[in-house]
Amino acid sequence: VARYVLPVRTIDWNVDEVVIIDQTALPAAERVVHLRTVDELVDAIRRLSVRGAMALGVAGALGVALAACRADEEGGNVRQAAESAAAKLVKARPTAVNLSWGAKRVAALAAGGRSAMVAEAIRILEEDVTANRAIGERGATLLEGRRRILTHCNAGALAGTEWGTALSIIRVLHERGAISEIFVSETRPLLQGARLTAWELGQMGVPHRVVVDGAGAGLILSGRVDAVVVGADRIARNGDVANKIGTVAHALAARRAGIPFIVAAPESTLDPDTETGSSIEIEERDPNEVLCFAGIRVAPDGSSALNLAFDVTPADLVTAIVTESRVIYPSADYILARP
Amino acid sequence: VARYVLPVRTIDWNVDEVVIIDQTALPAAERVVHLRTVDELVDAIRRLSVRGAMALGVAGALGVALAACRADEEGGNVRQAAESAAAKLVKARPTAVNLSWGAKRVAALAAGGRSAMVAEAIRILEEDVTANRAIGERGATLLEGRRRILTHCNAGALAGTEWGTALSIIRVLHERGAISEIFVSETRPLLQGARLTAWELGQMGVPHRVVVDGAGAGLILSGRVDAVVVGADRIARNGDVANKIGTVAHALAARRAGIPFIVAAPESTLDPDTETGSSIEIEERDPNEVLCFAGIRVAPDGSSALNLAFDVTPADLVTAIVTESRVIYPSADYILARP
Repeated sequence: VARYVLPVRTIDWNVDEVVIIDQTALPAAERVVHLRTVDELVDAIRRLSVRGAMALGVAGALGVALAACRADEEGGNVRQAAESAAAKLVKARPTAVNLSWGAKRVAALAAGGRSAMVAEAIRILEEDVTANRAIGERGATLLEGRRRILTHCNAGALAGTEWGTALSIIRVLHERGAISEIFVSETRPLLQGARLTAWELGQMGVPHRVVVDGAGAGLILSGRVDAVVVGADRIARNGDVANKIGTVAHALAARRAGIPFIVAAPESTLDPDTETGSSIEIEERDPNEVLCFAGIRVAPDGSSALNLAFDVTPADLVTAIVTESRVIYPSADYILARP
Repeated sequence: VARYVLPVRTIDWNVDEVVIIDQTALPAAERVVHLRTVDELVDAIRRLSVRGAMALGVAGALGVALAACRADEEGGNVRQAAESAAAKLVKARPTAVNLSWGAKRVAALAAGGRSAMVAEAIRILEEDVTANRAIGERGATLLEGRRRILTHCNAGALAGTEWGTALSIIRVLHERGAISEIFVSETRPLLQGARLTAWELGQMGVPHRVVVDGAGAGLILSGRVDAVVVGADRIARNGDVANKIGTVAHALAARRAGIPFIVAAPESTLDPDTETGSSIEIEERDPNEVLCFAGIRVAPDGSSALNLAFDVTPADLVTAIVTESRVIYPSADYILARP
């Protein structure tokens, strides 16, 4: 039986609008935001009010449905509105493949009009919930006996519709009584680990401690971690994984320590159009996210920053990719074709 | 000709007191603090007002001299005061071997009284200045042609008396016109990279960008870094290096990318009494340093943190250790005996 971690879903459809929890306000405040236009949604995606691979897939889908509803109400060209919305959504965050996947899947039904597109968007939303849970069950079985897990960024309920990916696995393990402790990498610059993952684990009652991002490798090498589990924003045809900046350091350490490095992601994160990680566009964000904190400048005035949002973990460092329908072993038998 | 980066030395002796720059106030304010008792100095060390391997070696030495001065003025037992001061100083930060090295070297002359101890402390201070520069010259020659360097934490003028270790190398390379860009790892939780290293590089006019700690491995693997240069807090007999948390992730990435990982440290950081890295005591600091940022709580109220101050880089990942008198290649020919 599903229990919600969140008061409402991370992202949901409500009659003719999109409803999200504003993730920039957590954990201090649980603020629910109603979005009625695709521009409002694109803005929310850019500000990271809604974020995470699976939630972005749903956002892409619901965003196109939103545009169709508004165009229909105003007597506009529904088909044109849907296509233009999809184009806008895809550009909102370039590294996340799910965003484009969701938007395109709904826009492909533009000929069917508003009702066909809304129905498809809701189908994607519900499929996401089911996929989240399937990933959790499959991953938990794979990780049986590994009680101390390190995770990076937030691949939880807040990154999916209900359960998430990496945290879905941790949740199932916890329900089986199989977790001793989770190490939560804080995830600078925006602290999705310290703010969001720690909050979700607290809601679930899972024992956890926050560590700085630099601590992961040392903890792994000193034998205090049994497995690393993370999400993904895009997985290339050869198995290279783009995920939140800082991920590849944990993968390098896991390889040296001989513990599994597990990527939890829905099939929609696999991108057959990207040959290898080197052709994944890495989003570069505002340097002030690094130079400042909570509006306070920490670096000297004359200094600038390079703020890459993601890094690429080479396929040979990935023990397994767990999706809603299979386990892929990239170094051994990676096959991208959908099952 | 030496030019000062700082308005005064990081740590200095002034007639009968210790003078430091309060590093917790930088870069916002350049505050100079006068310390007249060993307890004031121990407190400054614990708060990280004075920090960095070489500066702590000098602090250990000057602290014992300080205790001798006070005991002498008050008609107390100078020898006993010096020995008790050395014991206090050693415990102030357990991982930093230089602190104990400096304190013990001065306390060993306790039989000679106040003047012998003050003279020895000043000798250690001046030797440190000379050693800083020698490390810079030797390291710069070793790194000729490597124009893009990543450094972690602060191993600069603020961590030594004048020039530092890792930043002394960068300074000499810059003076030779051989630096394109320095990547400064911000170094959570206390941001010594973003606050102190960026500030020093700015003072020297060295082009640099701050990155989050998790970004180092990705930058290295994507071919944007030619060498990693860091300091050290303790180097074991077998060549394992204890340094600021986050260091070993850069070392793992450097090994995979095939670029040099260089440790810059004075001979006094080599610890013949520690067999391997696994027997180095790793300082665990207040969890609130991780859970809060600039005094603002970022993690949820129910969450705790593990705040390890250092990690250990295994000797086989260290390309070279550069000291004031030699270059040691740990994976090939590491010999700890002093030259």
